[in-house]
Amino acid sequence: MKINGEHYHTIWLNENDHSVVQIIDQRFLPHKLVVEDLNSVDDVERAIREMHVRGAPLIGVAAAYGMYFAALEAPHAVEREKYIESAARKLKAARPTAVNLAWAVEQQLKLALGKVENLPNSLLKNAERLKNESIERCKKIGEFGLPLIEAIYKEKKQTVNILTHCNAGWIACIDHGTATAPMYAAHNKGIPIHVWVDETRPRNQGARITAFELQEHGVPHTVITDNAGGHLMQHGQVDMVLVGTDRTTRIGDVCNKIGTYLKALAAFDNAIPFYVGAPTSSIDLSLHSGFDIPIEERGETEVKYIQGLHEGEIKKVLLTPKDSPAANFAFDVTPAKYVTGLITEYGICKAKEEDLLKITSNNDG
Amino acid sequence: MKINGEHYHTIWLNENDHSVVQIIDQRFLPHKLVVEDLNSVDDVERAIREMHVRGAPLIGVAAAYGMYFAALEAPHAVEREKYIESAARKLKAARPTAVNLAWAVEQQLKLALGKVENLPNSLLKNAERLKNESIERCKKIGEFGLPLIEAIYKEKKQTVNILTHCNAGWIACIDHGTATAPMYAAHNKGIPIHVWVDETRPRNQGARITAFELQEHGVPHTVITDNAGGHLMQHGQVDMVLVGTDRTTRIGDVCNKIGTYLKALAAFDNAIPFYVGAPTSSIDLSLHSGFDIPIEERGETEVKYIQGLHEGEIKKVLLTPKDSPAANFAFDVTPAKYVTGLITEYGICKAKEEDLLKITSNNDG
Repeated sequence: MKINGEHYHTIWLNENDHSVVQIIDQRFLPHKLVVEDLNSVDDVERAIREMHVRGAPLIGVAAAYGMYFAALEAPHAVEREKYIESAARKLKAARPTAVNLAWAVEQQLKLALGKVENLPNSLLKNAERLKNESIERCKKIGEFGLPLIEAIYKEKKQTVNILTHCNAGWIACIDHGTATAPMYAAHNKGIPIHVWVDETRPRNQGARITAFELQEHGVPHTVITDNAGGHLMQHGQVDMVLVGTDRTTRIGDVCNKIGTYLKALAAFDNAIPFYVGAPTSSIDLSLHSGFDIPIEERGETEVKYIQGLHEGEIKKVLLTPKDSPAANFAFDVTPAKYVTGLITEYGICKAKEEDLLKITSNNDG
Repeated sequence: MKINGEHYHTIWLNENDHSVVQIIDQRFLPHKLVVEDLNSVDDVERAIREMHVRGAPLIGVAAAYGMYFAALEAPHAVEREKYIESAARKLKAARPTAVNLAWAVEQQLKLALGKVENLPNSLLKNAERLKNESIERCKKIGEFGLPLIEAIYKEKKQTVNILTHCNAGWIACIDHGTATAPMYAAHNKGIPIHVWVDETRPRNQGARITAFELQEHGVPHTVITDNAGGHLMQHGQVDMVLVGTDRTTRIGDVCNKIGTYLKALAAFDNAIPFYVGAPTSSIDLSLHSGFDIPIEERGETEVKYIQGLHEGEIKKVLLTPKDSPAANFAFDVTPAKYVTGLITEYGICKAKEEDLLKITSNNDG
């Protein structure tokens, strides 16, 4: 998608110097667009750990490039394997809960430990393949989601208002995004859409990153507090809710950024469709109910402090009494009964065991 | 209630100098406790307009003191009436939508235009009476709400977890608060309670003021983002929701700070009682449905920027892309069907027309 009129990915190999991978350093968004050069396994590990890059699809691809650096850095002969294995461990540990990260690293490791002529080149090619597949999956989600928006437009004949929570956008992926893919597809096709962007406290990925994406790509949008969505839905200002997911269980319970559940309740109360952009890699058939998913509890400083721009500099300010405790639950679970459907790279399915088994069976082919 | 171990009101006459009224200047909470001296009608008008004081009960009382200053300042004879009438107009215009403010000013004006021997003294006495009545009403809400908390404690035999939104606390009133009155009553009686404080974006009255109140009075509490309440309710961490109200209609629809509706939906979904601390002055029998209440839309800067403490100074930081628009709806409406009950100064009643007519009839006596 576009930034300042130019087409960007979140990560790319430097065209002129193949020993450099470049990323958008997301820590400074939306205030500054910083492109960072990564030159080593350690650079990639730090970029993942310190969240210069974030979003499951993106950190998987970043780690795959990290394994390419491992091959470049590895000494010859016997120690090569040891070095590459150690790099794999390091990269996987950078964000231990991200399933996608471990999966991408393992793929590269398997390749590295096999018989390969030009190892760096092979790992580079495989990293680029993973990147392209990720783009393709998001694009497909966009294609399958587009008709939902088109149908609303055909009936309404006015701008389609979509509410989203957090950032399941192209900046969490490589391009297109998951929840945002149908929005970009509709916008690019000329269907008038407008997106209500939940700011998504505590880390404000909506106000910071989703708003930035949409603004730069030219999609009409309005930032709202997380409190406002219910009121908008009561007043006919939302035609559809479209969010991402970190994990969806076998029976269709959707785990996503904290606060998603409240929006699902409001959508249900006002008979508004609630869709989830969900690559099949995020559907976890090993878990039955959403309440089996352990919910990450993060540090209280993310709630007590917030970061923003003050006189050209990014600063953190304290919001609460110094000594008041705060709690910080990162995700919540939306029970399947409130989910209208999941938009996957293989099509749309209901949040029901039978349908989820069918759609994920495409992955085995 | 207490600040730093001392019992405070939000407004009081200086004991030694009756030409000075003192207030807590709320703009600096929770970071700094600033007590401001008010010496004139203009001081009071500015304190109301610029929100040094806020909360319907408090600004009503502040304006009543303002009318006392008008009497002190007024010249003799014929011009006196003119001066006082002009002061009344000025004070009422400071926050034009606050019903309570106009009501308090009118009361004082009526007194001033009648035959009174010592006018300043009469207006001062009446301001103090209004103040004491306001305290008494909140205290009664506390007494009627207390048994609800006590009953949960008797059954649960563990700390009672109460979730609240925004600040309907003593700092919005004179003492006790409305939603907080039952909490203080329970805490002071030794019933173990813990309060989940919604930060309440955009103005963060929860994180700033409710947290400050509870912290200073020694009530265990935890600040959470507005997104977190649903998750807590799903996991048995909330025994009761207790909020305030700006206006409740004849059929029991509750208008309160934006986001209240989302918490009511989550409480309903998880079978958790949802109570509203509501002085009968906030029940507006002239309105039928909550959707008849015009919802104030405020400036976008309150969403795009936030204020906090940075290196000892209060600073505003930008949260969104500079050019992204934001919308700022101040209130929402919780339909009566999601409201378990209203706690008034005359007792608890259901959010039903019949019950509301009965309870408000006490005001005519």
